[in-house]
Amino acid sequence: MTELPDRVTIREVGPRDGLQSEKPLPVEDRVRLIEALSETGVPRLEAVSFVSPKAVPAMADAAAVWRRVRKVSHVEYSALVPNRRGAEDAVRASGFASLQAFLATADGYNRKNVGKSVDESIADVAEVVGVAEPVGLPVEVSISTSFGDPYEGDVVPARVLEVAERVLDAGAQRISLADTTGMATPTRIWEVVGLLQQRLPDAPINLHLHDTRGTAMANMLAAMQIGITEFDASIGGLGGSPFAPGANGNLATEDVVHMLSDMGVETGIDLDRVLAAASLLESLVGHRVNSQVTKAGPRWVLASR
Amino acid sequence: MTELPDRVTIREVGPRDGLQSEKPLPVEDRVRLIEALSETGVPRLEAVSFVSPKAVPAMADAAAVWRRVRKVSHVEYSALVPNRRGAEDAVRASGFASLQAFLATADGYNRKNVGKSVDESIADVAEVVGVAEPVGLPVEVSISTSFGDPYEGDVVPARVLEVAERVLDAGAQRISLADTTGMATPTRIWEVVGLLQQRLPDAPINLHLHDTRGTAMANMLAAMQIGITEFDASIGGLGGSPFAPGANGNLATEDVVHMLSDMGVETGIDLDRVLAAASLLESLVGHRVNSQVTKAGPRWVLASR
Repeated sequence: MTELPDRVTIREVGPRDGLQSEKPLPVEDRVRLIEALSETGVPRLEAVSFVSPKAVPAMADAAAVWRRVRKVSHVEYSALVPNRRGAEDAVRASGFASLQAFLATADGYNRKNVGKSVDESIADVAEVVGVAEPVGLPVEVSISTSFGDPYEGDVVPARVLEVAERVLDAGAQRISLADTTGMATPTRIWEVVGLLQQRLPDAPINLHLHDTRGTAMANMLAAMQIGITEFDASIGGLGGSPFAPGANGNLATEDVVHMLSDMGVETGIDLDRVLAAASLLESLVGHRVNSQVTKAGPRWVLASR
Repeated sequence: MTELPDRVTIREVGPRDGLQSEKPLPVEDRVRLIEALSETGVPRLEAVSFVSPKAVPAMADAAAVWRRVRKVSHVEYSALVPNRRGAEDAVRASGFASLQAFLATADGYNRKNVGKSVDESIADVAEVVGVAEPVGLPVEVSISTSFGDPYEGDVVPARVLEVAERVLDAGAQRISLADTTGMATPTRIWEVVGLLQQRLPDAPINLHLHDTRGTAMANMLAAMQIGITEFDASIGGLGGSPFAPGANGNLATEDVVHMLSDMGVETGIDLDRVLAAASLLESLVGHRVNSQVTKAGPRWVLASR
């Protein structure tokens, strides 16, 4: 048997990465979802995204959503920001525990996503830090396509390390490695994460896993086995990749909490409340979500004879 | 990084465990599916089930299906048999490399499934061996509910060991541990399988994993890490549990082959042929299957810019 951490920290990204690929919801519904998720015991929650409403209509009105949310003191809320302007909006909105910037490992994907080269995005990270640091906000940078790139294919671990080093040099305090289009497998997790752990031992690393090809839960297990204790998850497994329509999206919060609970790995999250939030989410988006525990129920709920 | 086997042996169970939960298909369609799967490079294939057609209508006409299948010499075909009568039918049909009997860890589930106590099913195993042994056919016994029971909840590993010892004493040569309703998690895999490896070091162990609660791929990884190299998988992830309608079924062959291929774990299976078989399966059953690689494609097929 391998070693597992006693505890992992889940960041709920459903209101941001999840809803981003849905039809835009009214401000009120997004507020309801964030509030329901805030009551699950989740320690971190990515609430909104200060991106252009033209680029991502579902994320419009971030300030209005955020203003109306009843904040819960034990939750660290974060906002996604693409650049200086987004960071300024987030700082103006106030109340976030951190900001999340992002870029990819290669120019092709990065240009498709934000219309800039990776170098230009690293300059943006420095500008975001320039806005966030004076007000005491740490910046985490999500490195998309860290385990594979839909245009380039395999991504060499040294390239992920290089991008990570550069964003840390630019002032970022934390790294999130994103498997944006679900190309990671356990061996790639061990290779990429292992290299960063060795070369950047002081940088906190979060993993953002997509289940596009059915590997996300195995990848999470593989990461826990090498000491990773921070993971993103999305209520209902919501979120996806435009490169794989119909495929699974993010690792589903309820499936993660359910499995970890049975394994004795503490998350601090109440599964019943997560399932209630998933049910609310289904009513808001108007379709069933694709997580398994919403369909099968927890393993401890027994069948009647 | 943890040790992984260089190679695993997949048994394809789609034509049996998969189709069992579908509307009955004509003999000709079942023959086509078995033949398509036989061409994928899979080394073992559970082709048919000699059960009562009243109990499982989709498995009727096993002898007719089997007679018409063009057998491929490098595939070891097996048949599921519930009792002496099924074993006699399978021996009469001839050409199988092994027979598969089955029972559960507790009386409640076993009675629901075959109307008998576990003790009575163990007596059936002895009778199946009595039919198979004289004609040189090894018997593998599938132990259902090895990682959890929908009526009982948790199953203590010692109970799985006890059942395994008794079926081996009854003459079975191999054990398959089935997570029938998807209640396994990696720690339970390590506990149950670890105990059997320690106490029954000479018994070959296969794992039959269901993804009912999203844990199957992580469970497979966990099992490989402790040296298990035999797994069942079902084309399209077909098959399910009557206890969790709408939930995922078996571990999908294409998702398993895809992940293992990227991890350098050899299966001998050609993914393109598996995907072609999945496509055939979808046309035969008349609905999309729920595997991920059928939706997203292999990670090495790049997007056009």
